[in-house]
Amino acid sequence: MWEILCFKASLMDRVKKLEILLEFGKKIQAERNIEKLIKLLTEEATELLEAERATVFVLDKEKKKLWSLVGLGLDKQKIEIPMNEGIAGYVATTGESLNVPNAYKDERFNKEIDKKTGFRTKTILAVPIRNLKGEIMGVFQVLNKKDTTFNEEDEEILNMLASQAGVAIENSKLYSQLKEAFSSFIESLAQALDARDHITSGHTLRVANLSMLIGKKLGLNEEEIEILHHAAWLHDIGKIGIKDSVLAKPGKLTEEEFNHIKTHTILTKQILDKIKFYGKMKDIPLIASSHHERYDGRGYNLGLKGTEIPLLSRIISVSDVFDALTSKRHYRDPMPILQVLEIIEDGKGKNFDPKIVEIFFTLSLFEILNVIKLGRKKLKLTPEEENLLKSINLKTFFSFLKKKQNTPYGTKKPY
Amino acid sequence: MWEILCFKASLMDRVKKLEILLEFGKKIQAERNIEKLIKLLTEEATELLEAERATVFVLDKEKKKLWSLVGLGLDKQKIEIPMNEGIAGYVATTGESLNVPNAYKDERFNKEIDKKTGFRTKTILAVPIRNLKGEIMGVFQVLNKKDTTFNEEDEEILNMLASQAGVAIENSKLYSQLKEAFSSFIESLAQALDARDHITSGHTLRVANLSMLIGKKLGLNEEEIEILHHAAWLHDIGKIGIKDSVLAKPGKLTEEEFNHIKTHTILTKQILDKIKFYGKMKDIPLIASSHHERYDGRGYNLGLKGTEIPLLSRIISVSDVFDALTSKRHYRDPMPILQVLEIIEDGKGKNFDPKIVEIFFTLSLFEILNVIKLGRKKLKLTPEEENLLKSINLKTFFSFLKKKQNTPYGTKKPY
Repeated sequence: MWEILCFKASLMDRVKKLEILLEFGKKIQAERNIEKLIKLLTEEATELLEAERATVFVLDKEKKKLWSLVGLGLDKQKIEIPMNEGIAGYVATTGESLNVPNAYKDERFNKEIDKKTGFRTKTILAVPIRNLKGEIMGVFQVLNKKDTTFNEEDEEILNMLASQAGVAIENSKLYSQLKEAFSSFIESLAQALDARDHITSGHTLRVANLSMLIGKKLGLNEEEIEILHHAAWLHDIGKIGIKDSVLAKPGKLTEEEFNHIKTHTILTKQILDKIKFYGKMKDIPLIASSHHERYDGRGYNLGLKGTEIPLLSRIISVSDVFDALTSKRHYRDPMPILQVLEIIEDGKGKNFDPKIVEIFFTLSLFEILNVIKLGRKKLKLTPEEENLLKSINLKTFFSFLKKKQNTPYGTKKPY
Repeated sequence: MWEILCFKASLMDRVKKLEILLEFGKKIQAERNIEKLIKLLTEEATELLEAERATVFVLDKEKKKLWSLVGLGLDKQKIEIPMNEGIAGYVATTGESLNVPNAYKDERFNKEIDKKTGFRTKTILAVPIRNLKGEIMGVFQVLNKKDTTFNEEDEEILNMLASQAGVAIENSKLYSQLKEAFSSFIESLAQALDARDHITSGHTLRVANLSMLIGKKLGLNEEEIEILHHAAWLHDIGKIGIKDSVLAKPGKLTEEEFNHIKTHTILTKQILDKIKFYGKMKDIPLIASSHHERYDGRGYNLGLKGTEIPLLSRIISVSDVFDALTSKRHYRDPMPILQVLEIIEDGKGKNFDPKIVEIFFTLSLFEILNVIKLGRKKLKLTPEEENLLKSINLKTFFSFLKKKQNTPYGTKKPY
């Protein structure tokens, strides 16, 4: 009778654990961000196996490394170890599970991670993470079972978790690889287009980076930042249809030529409209092609006004003008920074959304210098110089320049 | 005592079912192809619930339709129903589960699908498929429980299956949407580049389509076909860096201009090398940029010879020449088809891989006509004309043309 009851209790325990695993499985399969995925997996393992800590190592076959995020809470740090080092390395290379009752007595144990995190490892259970084909994707490790050592049942549960993890990690990898291929394709093409005219080389790279800086200061969320990134990289894609005799004309453009150049935003829209964007990415064609709209409604293509212009276009618009003015053009030299800042300040409410201009002026000199440098010759700064540049924002710098202009050292030039 | 034993048996049964679900969960989460995913899901549900048949309906919110694959085995056909029609429509719109003991007595039941498939529905259990956010993604339906009706436990299991299905369907959708965005981006850009010179407009579209035809006849697998598709669409991407005065020059090119045009394959390589391709896609830069290599080693960029040239480049090479010769150029009219076929036949072992040329000649007139038409004016054929064109392959047609050439009606012209 007791036997039956005990058996029943352990069966019920098993049902409960299986139900948790099943429920948890959905959560991890829905997570495409690998770092968040690792966090979910370690939290679940810690709880389910009554361990003090858990680590998921992901195998990078090309680099022959295992990498992971270690530490506590928000302080997670990325670490990398050679794929055959430590307990995890042993598991990754042999495919065997290991149940280590005393870590410091096992010569395979790597004390370095404890040193880094200040944690004291006692017991370890480590199993390989495999995909459905059986290929090793990483290692799942739990540390310090509460009051005792890990047993066979723990090993079974960790193996179940690890096999769910294997599928989830593989999916997340594939998804992010595809995303990266997509982004890098956009970037490579935009750069090739810029390079048609040596003078605009690097323009889109700088506009994209400056837009990111403004977008982040504005507090855009992850999804909006991604869309801003794509749209900024694509804003001039319509230049594909602009004649290079006009694009690279040495000297001022005639009215007809200028009108030809202006069609690039229409082309940007047409090219992007053919792309099967989905979800919020569907806004990219409009966002990318509206960077010459003006806040006062006097821009093109559509003459949109104020908030009719997509917010992200209003950001790209400021970045685009800033980079154009600080760069050489066939008909003029790069403008002095004071003049550029004056034009942007004056454009508040005319060319630009005043709010975006204000945020632009909160950028530090260090940030803006890093953007200006992009795609150009490298500039080296000492740590002191860096800190100084970080402490000054554009607004302060602008006031300083304006003051200086009125001293005997400055020269006031109209633009 | 009996009670305890029964309880134990039902617990063991539950453990078994949970284990099956857990194991099965990994399989479906690893499947990114939506049609294969639906097949897996229906097979599993049929077995687990002892049903005669199962259907997974996927909700297309934009079209307001539910679609599925129905029928038996390999004969699965795609069907679409309005999202509020039938039992599935009721579940999709209300989010309620339904257990219908007699389908033909339920007025919501849609008899059309039975009519189509020749199946006789008796009992139905249908539950909504939701993603983790609780949004309805579709409907999971099982039909005709063996010897009885569906009970509460069946409903619980189907719900568990459906919630795994929700995550898997969402992942598969996102992945294929991203893939489509990527492909359509490549296509849109290549078309914009072709359109820089009206005379090459549609060239890449035709080369890609012809390459697909040859690739499929050659028996390439799904992955190779996908790579061929991308590489063909990207083969002329380097033309981004070719001056339009040369690209669209009316009349013959000078040697210098021709050498400038030839750099487009180097640029194709450079642009594609910057893309973070992964897996087998890593070969795309070499494949796309090798379409001017010759089988006898006398081509460019690298002067590769025979099988040193990637197989997929050898396919694109034939397609590229076929389209160039059948199209107008600034310095000549489109060539007569006989002459084009002679050039390709003569190029066996010189310009082209003899095996690819042979496969090219097995294409039917109908297939080749459909390629030639692409991006040009539409041509309408009667069903009889279509069948005739389908029955003649290029080889037969070529012999016929050659014979005709030697009759009083044909004229032999040297090229």
